[in-house]
Amino acid sequence: MAGSSRRAGGRRLQLPLLCLLLQGATAILFAVFVRYNHETDAALWHWGNHSNPDNEFYFRYPSFQDVHTMIFVGFGFLMAFLQRYGFSSVGFTFLLAAFALQWSTLVQGFLHTFHGGHIHIGVESMINADFCAGAVLISFGAILGKTGPAQLLLMALLEVVLFGLNEFVLLSLLGVKDAGGSMTIHTFGAYFGLVLSRVLYRPQLEKSKHRQSSVYHSDLFAMIGTIFLWIFWPSFNSAPTPLGDGQHRTALNTYYSLTASTLSTFALSALVGRDGRLDMPILESKFKIQDTCGVHNLHGMPGVLGALLGVLVAGLATHDSYGEGLESVFPLIAEGQRSSTSQALHQLFGLFVTLIFASVGGGLGGLLLRLPFLDSPPDSQCYEDQIYWEVPEEHADLAQGSLRPEEPDTQA
Amino acid sequence: MAGSSRRAGGRRLQLPLLCLLLQGATAILFAVFVRYNHETDAALWHWGNHSNPDNEFYFRYPSFQDVHTMIFVGFGFLMAFLQRYGFSSVGFTFLLAAFALQWSTLVQGFLHTFHGGHIHIGVESMINADFCAGAVLISFGAILGKTGPAQLLLMALLEVVLFGLNEFVLLSLLGVKDAGGSMTIHTFGAYFGLVLSRVLYRPQLEKSKHRQSSVYHSDLFAMIGTIFLWIFWPSFNSAPTPLGDGQHRTALNTYYSLTASTLSTFALSALVGRDGRLDMPILESKFKIQDTCGVHNLHGMPGVLGALLGVLVAGLATHDSYGEGLESVFPLIAEGQRSSTSQALHQLFGLFVTLIFASVGGGLGGLLLRLPFLDSPPDSQCYEDQIYWEVPEEHADLAQGSLRPEEPDTQA
Amino acid sequence: MAGSSRRAGGRRLQLPLLCLLLQGATAILFAVFVRYNHETDAALWHWGNHSNPDNEFYFRYPSFQDVHTMIFVGFGFLMAFLQRYGFSSVGFTFLLAAFALQWSTLVQGFLHTFHGGHIHIGVESMINADFCAGAVLISFGAILGKTGPAQLLLMALLEVVLFGLNEFVLLSLLGVKDAGGSMTIHTFGAYFGLVLSRVLYRPQLEKSKHRQSSVYHSDLFAMIGTIFLWIFWPSFNSAPTPLGDGQHRTALNTYYSLTASTLSTFALSALVGRDGRLDMPILESKFKIQDTCGVHNLHGMPGVLGALLGVLVAGLATHDSYGEGLESVFPLIAEGQRSSTSQALHQLFGLFVTLIFASVGGGLGGLLLRLPFLDSPPDSQCYEDQIYWEVPEEHADLAQGSLRPEEPDTQA
Repeated sequence: MAGSSRRAGGRRLQLPLLCLLLQGATAILFAVFVRYNHETDAALWHWGNHSNPDNEFYFRYPSFQDVHTMIFVGFGFLMAFLQRYGFSSVGFTFLLAAFALQWSTLVQGFLHTFHGGHIHIGVESMINADFCAGAVLISFGAILGKTGPAQLLLMALLEVVLFGLNEFVLLSLLGVKDAGGSMTIHTFGAYFGLVLSRVLYRPQLEKSKHRQSSVYHSDLFAMIGTIFLWIFWPSFNSAPTPLGDGQHRTALNTYYSLTASTLSTFALSALVGRDGRLDMPILESKFKIQDTCGVHNLHGMPGVLGALLGVLVAGLATHDSYGEGLESVFPLIAEGQRSSTSQALHQLFGLFVTLIFASVGGGLGGLLLRLPFLDSPPDSQCYEDQIYWEVPEEHADLAQGSLRPEEPDTQA
Repeated sequence: MAGSSRRAGGRRLQLPLLCLLLQGATAILFAVFVRYNHETDAALWHWGNHSNPDNEFYFRYPSFQDVHTMIFVGFGFLMAFLQRYGFSSVGFTFLLAAFALQWSTLVQGFLHTFHGGHIHIGVESMINADFCAGAVLISFGAILGKTGPAQLLLMALLEVVLFGLNEFVLLSLLGVKDAGGSMTIHTFGAYFGLVLSRVLYRPQLEKSKHRQSSVYHSDLFAMIGTIFLWIFWPSFNSAPTPLGDGQHRTALNTYYSLTASTLSTFALSALVGRDGRLDMPILESKFKIQDTCGVHNLHGMPGVLGALLGVLVAGLATHDSYGEGLESVFPLIAEGQRSSTSQALHQLFGLFVTLIFASVGGGLGGLLLRLPFLDSPPDSQCYEDQIYWEVPEEHADLAQGSLRPEEPDTQA
Repeated sequence: MAGSSRRAGGRRLQLPLLCLLLQGATAILFAVFVRYNHETDAALWHWGNHSNPDNEFYFRYPSFQDVHTMIFVGFGFLMAFLQRYGFSSVGFTFLLAAFALQWSTLVQGFLHTFHGGHIHIGVESMINADFCAGAVLISFGAILGKTGPAQLLLMALLEVVLFGLNEFVLLSLLGVKDAGGSMTIHTFGAYFGLVLSRVLYRPQLEKSKHRQSSVYHSDLFAMIGTIFLWIFWPSFNSAPTPLGDGQHRTALNTYYSLTASTLSTFALSALVGRDGRLDMPILESKFKIQDTCGVHNLHGMPGVLGALLGVLVAGLATHDSYGEGLESVFPLIAEGQRSSTSQALHQLFGLFVTLIFASVGGGLGGLLLRLPFLDSPPDSQCYEDQIYWEVPEEHADLAQGSLRPEEPDTQA
């Protein structure tokens, strides 16, 4: 009991202090370094004598809002399937993403739009920051229920930096094209989370096994997340592409690919299910597996597959198939600086770099989160809202009842 | 028991094989016939020397995404009011719509954008495919809880073809205007479903009556569906209209019509309700009626009413009221090919054609779904997720308890 | 019992008659006074020889739809945290907003776009009407659970008029800038509701205290509302701003401000919470406090703070910082009609006017709602759906059980 109340005292200060520290530092860095870009600054925009309807805002903002919905509603509720971890799933998604958006604006800004001593931001910064938050939330999925909010913030602090560096190496140094964020978002986020989860391995976690199941209505909440992720995926993939046919084509391709995947997933789920029964399809079910291979199936493997398809597409790119459009899809091939084969090899190398960044980063992250003074939930209280949240009474009683006093606390 | 396990064995293979067959065939047809149109194809777009901001994508995609949200979130959760059929409502909506989107792209493509041996697709194809999926989901509403997923896929296979043919006859052959899809979507979808449901009539269905009720939280989930349908209706109606004032006016009219209907619905609901109580208003409540007149009130009657209003509006159309805009609203009148009266008669004939297509189609559909080898849920397991889905345990127990073994299985 | 059934009889007619009366009157006023503006009218738009892509619709409608989602999904579900008041929260939000949208189009139209004997409407009218509905829903939050639907409609009838007048005085007469609706929406809506709630004060309300708590899943529904409000706030603030850099900048500022507030809120919530536990963060928790200070914290104080910041920003506005953009931000300063200091004083006076309008209006509203023939829920049935809605049986039983017959009905 003494240990428990000491821990509670630690928790009482750890999270708020870390929040205030990170927010304070971020605010100062914003004040010093961040400025409006020429599409958002009143003086610059009007000086440029632009027509208001030409502002980048009108071509990006609707897609941005779809992406934003995916990050907060989609990821938040997707992870709400655990019967006693709904507040944490939604709430920590909120906290993590809110921090990642700001921190990533700084990191990506320093690497991509830093000139004249300042970072310049606009709607594209918002889209890119949301993408980075997406990678962080994928990693969160791999350790869902097993870490506290202070640990998660530290994870984001590290992951956002490595995400930015990896993205910079791929896009700026290697000239790699990363359609749909296969490498920079899905592969990176998944393997970062998986390696981190491996470092945090808890042999005694079966104690909380009964809390890893869902209940009927928590599954319906998770379906809200699933469906919002699904319907806005075309916007996710098309939000950052070049304007015009490129954005149009990407949305179209994603739309039809998703519908085809859905039928295949139903087929597979019915084939492998008990008595041909379906499990809640597509995305969410995989998260339920206690070990972290959920994220592996959901983002890791598809991310690698997408990256390999990118290698293939680059290798087959010709002027005949793209016409003048080749310039916006593979500019280095169009400009004669690279052959298709060379571009394909660069793509492959980009995947390799991503896996290295993710693995080493995830390992470092795991060590960081194991720092003994960090407030980690004991095995017996994993997947449990009550340790972090005020929970309405009838539900708290239920959870309390399941916390048998004789359970040894292996973390203490 | 033997019959039951044989049935389970049949189900085990029926759904996955049908999914794979349909998806395989669709994929092949896409590969052979479907090509990017000039707004999505890199070579064609850039060859046309267009300015990227002029791409059709920017004028249609935000509306498309609203429609897409209506189809998957709106319809999916609208039908989630049944206390034990939430997974099926959301999941089968997902499956049906995912297939209908692809299949309808092919059918509508062959009828509307087939030239040079290919179908040409872009954001308008996506909107039109979503509309067709909407009609299929309206029909689904009429038979909710009484059919299995394989039956539903076969229904969609047939309905999408007839939807496309009816639409082609009305829009291309008869030159009819169908504002808000009154005829092609609402009237067609409703009467197709109603006739189909009549053919599938089950005299013993009262056995499942207790499962047709809602529970408190399932009604709140249904409210999510209801409200997303309501708020995005202006986008639904305006997504396919001509650009400019037409799209603007349609959204505006829908917005104000909906608000007025809402107050009227509350008034009516309070007038007829017990002690003046309100029932969950507007859309969802009607679905609860076990016979299928829910869809009749919700889409059938309003669709016919809308079609008749279209007759009236066409009959009154003059150059004075529309000015140069008449060209985009009633082009045949504007070009002097038809009088207002003639256009009105064509509109009326379009409604008649739609009712024929829907009734004959629904009848055929009913016969198709009664094929004896198709896996239809027994009366005692209608409105029950558990027969098709892995359901979390506490909920399965509850449902199990209600499956009294002495219940004779009238379908077997 | 006799009193109760008389009350039920009164309720039976009060709501439907009021709905029909208000809707009938609104419809007549629309028919007489409302016309399409030059962006929505077919003849006017085409006569103007405009290019269709230049229609205002394309620059406003995506933001409008986000705002519309906030009003109906955001506010509706935000207030759904009460365990037995979910239908009322969502349903009355629906009813109130549907009426406010129409009524406010008329009131705002008479004050802002009335010429040639007509009100002229387009997508901007829709955005402004939604804003007014937002203010009404903020006031609703202050009296949630304590008033019936007929009372709420009368509140809206009065509040919309005063909202329009206050807005007209500020924006048109005083030349005040009201970024994000700090004064016209948040301050006005909050203090109108708070004063009204004070007038309706019920000393015996603790009887319903147990119904003011949430249950686990009702809190998750409330999170849906919270998050939709949060993600679309950038659209809310930027929807009505001048096109181009102004709209872009406003969305960007809101986005980053929200993320920073989120971390600060988590910090604060963890600091003050029991054992450092978090309460459902940001917006919703505050509503739970039985007295109305929820709205005070959530909209009143931030609204006043925002208004005071507006005073500061106006006082510091210079040509150097805004360049040619000053014209669209503070036109009266740009045109030399006012100094920055004078603009700042006008802003401060605008806040003062708003507080007067809200307080006097809320007081009048309270007196109106206390009219004895109005059907107000008795103390013992506050925060209870069952008095107004058909509630699924198992839930009704639960509520019934808690309605102890010996409870004296202090309202009767």
